[in-house]
Amino acid sequence: MKPGDRRSDGLPDRRAQDLAAGLGELGCRALLVVAQSASDPDLAPFLGVPAHLGAALLVAPREGPPRLAYLNPMEREEAAATGLLLVTPEELEVLRAAREAPEPAAYLAWVMSRALAASGVAPGRVALAGLAPAGEIQCACAALARQGWEWVAGNELVRMVRKRKTAAELAAIRQAAAATVEVLRALAGRVAAAAAPDGGGGGGLAPERAEGRELWLDGRPLTVGRLRAEAGRLLAEHGVEQPHGNIVAPGGEGGVPHSAGSDGRPLRAGEPLIVDLFPRGAWRERPLVFADCTRTLCAGEPPPAVARAHAAVLRALAAARALAVPGARGWDLQEAVCLAFEEAGYATPLRQPGTTTGYVHNLGHGIGYELHELPIFRKVAGAEGVLAEGDVFTLEPGLYDPAAGYGVRLEDLCHLGPEGLEVLTPLPYDLDPRRWMLDPRN
Amino acid sequence: MKPGDRRSDGLPDRRAQDLAAGLGELGCRALLVVAQSASDPDLAPFLGVPAHLGAALLVAPREGPPRLAYLNPMEREEAAATGLLLVTPEELEVLRAAREAPEPAAYLAWVMSRALAASGVAPGRVALAGLAPAGEIQCACAALARQGWEWVAGNELVRMVRKRKTAAELAAIRQAAAATVEVLRALAGRVAAAAAPDGGGGGGLAPERAEGRELWLDGRPLTVGRLRAEAGRLLAEHGVEQPHGNIVAPGGEGGVPHSAGSDGRPLRAGEPLIVDLFPRGAWRERPLVFADCTRTLCAGEPPPAVARAHAAVLRALAAARALAVPGARGWDLQEAVCLAFEEAGYATPLRQPGTTTGYVHNLGHGIGYELHELPIFRKVAGAEGVLAEGDVFTLEPGLYDPAAGYGVRLEDLCHLGPEGLEVLTPLPYDLDPRRWMLDPRN
Repeated sequence: MKPGDRRSDGLPDRRAQDLAAGLGELGCRALLVVAQSASDPDLAPFLGVPAHLGAALLVAPREGPPRLAYLNPMEREEAAATGLLLVTPEELEVLRAAREAPEPAAYLAWVMSRALAASGVAPGRVALAGLAPAGEIQCACAALARQGWEWVAGNELVRMVRKRKTAAELAAIRQAAAATVEVLRALAGRVAAAAAPDGGGGGGLAPERAEGRELWLDGRPLTVGRLRAEAGRLLAEHGVEQPHGNIVAPGGEGGVPHSAGSDGRPLRAGEPLIVDLFPRGAWRERPLVFADCTRTLCAGEPPPAVARAHAAVLRALAAARALAVPGARGWDLQEAVCLAFEEAGYATPLRQPGTTTGYVHNLGHGIGYELHELPIFRKVAGAEGVLAEGDVFTLEPGLYDPAAGYGVRLEDLCHLGPEGLEVLTPLPYDLDPRRWMLDPRN
Repeated sequence: MKPGDRRSDGLPDRRAQDLAAGLGELGCRALLVVAQSASDPDLAPFLGVPAHLGAALLVAPREGPPRLAYLNPMEREEAAATGLLLVTPEELEVLRAAREAPEPAAYLAWVMSRALAASGVAPGRVALAGLAPAGEIQCACAALARQGWEWVAGNELVRMVRKRKTAAELAAIRQAAAATVEVLRALAGRVAAAAAPDGGGGGGLAPERAEGRELWLDGRPLTVGRLRAEAGRLLAEHGVEQPHGNIVAPGGEGGVPHSAGSDGRPLRAGEPLIVDLFPRGAWRERPLVFADCTRTLCAGEPPPAVARAHAAVLRALAAARALAVPGARGWDLQEAVCLAFEEAGYATPLRQPGTTTGYVHNLGHGIGYELHELPIFRKVAGAEGVLAEGDVFTLEPGLYDPAAGYGVRLEDLCHLGPEGLEVLTPLPYDLDPRRWMLDPRN
């Protein structure tokens, strides 16, 4: 966290203002975040750097600084290190709660009402956020409603507040993106080496490895599982990990965008391979944020349909980039990309909602403490769908034809900065991984 | 998933029975799990192996098979691979929902009611589980209550249902535990090497590295951060990752059990170091479950207080193991350990609730899809506090004195199997890492 990035009370100025304004619009006297751990995406923005916390609550009154209520006395040092004003387990009377209200929902209602009271918030209208056990939070809220509390959905408010990244968050996203780029480069190198005659990196695809033949490397078939395992090892070396896994999807598996790929599946020459990595930081000193980047590789000669789709996707990505300016709606970009794809003869959700061939998804998504956050690229009226300075989001057009056995997606992670759009994942776009090796950064 | 471990409808027989019985006790006609991803701990038990799914719902009627409702058409292959009966995005009318109910809480209410209806569940009393955006689930439930739905907290029911592990879950926990053991062994080797005169593994602590002196390795100080980074790299090589980080806490930092440790802190001879690893599987073909193991290391001569605490903790662990039989209450073990520690002159929460020196926490916790699940070792009346065959849990007595600059904790991961208690983390308990090297498994 850089100096000036954070107020002494633990929230960057701009965010504190946005939060107060949002609470005002909702008519709420406070925000209450109920979290299972410090990595809760609605709690993390208040913490700055990761803390080793279990269940915790945050109360941000409309006026005045937020307070962190932690439930475990053993976490006192970790809680203190956040720099936030604290509500201690003793103030929450957690020992008494465990005796008098042992059922999970009753215990939760107990600590919620005490955390609010200790923060000077009297019963009234409160915005609720965080990820919580659904049944227990619903029961706790119902019980507290009988004591004069009124609950309003506050998750979207926190999503809006954290849409514009802080300097510390941006720096951490850059670091995660740099790791992703390095690992994608290394994976392309593996596929390029497997396409070589000796499976050892000599270059040039031998006739016996031509279209449809399995790729081998180091004397063994190069499978989805091998490449996936390599990705995991390399990402860990770069300080990131994969809480949501990854996508290594060849041929027809890549034709369904969220298919993760089958580990036993060998890679084949002349077949496109989608590699989509979306790791999260696993460090101590920076916010735990995600990065996200996709490339499509094809060792050997791609079928004409794949080459054509790849060229169209690359054009779409460039068009989307050009339109990504502050004030633009995500939907405008999505619509422009749909129209361009339709002109090229591909189906899109614009005229064929629910299509499973052609362009079948949205153009991108915001990213941060969650893999998918604001801005969104759907047709919505509010600010959640408007690009603004400080946003970090993906642009990821793709074309899919599962029956024809291919998917092609190119995804860049972008930051809308004061100088315009900045691509955080500078990597070649070539289908042929051997061409990646010509990149001066290799 | 082994044959016989799972019914054709996607739930092991025993669990289906437990779930139906639990729903009967709650007077509910169905369980509804609202999940943000396939790794939701209340959804994962129904999936068997990991699926690449975003937001999803599961409806388990009291009678009849459960159904998985997924929201994204791109996830059709992943959803189909679960083998569960499906409710498709088309049946949920998600496109219409996005138009007519775009606010997150309204959208959620829409898909909840349609998933229930598509599963043949009419408005009535339903148990709710999963981890959901707190504000949005609360609002969605309140809106649906006006249409005749009545909500009961169902998270604890699912926790009880998944308390007894399936064969597949146990196998995955074994694999995560084996990785943890290997990495702890390697880290002990690093500390042992740093204690050697040349910092290179020759053995024997030189006088100039005696008590209080910094440990060096490969010509640089061995810091908390170096050991933590090494842990991350090695765990990744073994196919696990650390969504909740880890604890590498020397001296006084280890005196506060949940302190994660400061990366810049150099390790010192004659100072105990708590290393607590709790990684989760990062594979595709097995359930994504946690393991958890702690050892305390001390390079060089430990201070007498540390040696004495270590001996007492080791006796407590043995005593706890002996008491861990089916039908025993977790609280009985906790009480026995407290009494033994008190006899040895240490404070415990039994007579001094909230003590921050001596034995300051509970004896252990169940483990599985969550790091902390059932059974629990607190004073509770119900089955959630009773050890039973099939349980997997930690036993982790410890003694702490932050002012005196030490914490000592020894934690084993245990499975209560048909042959009795099985320790899944067979590692030396020695404080001196050089003695670990005498272990025949090194």
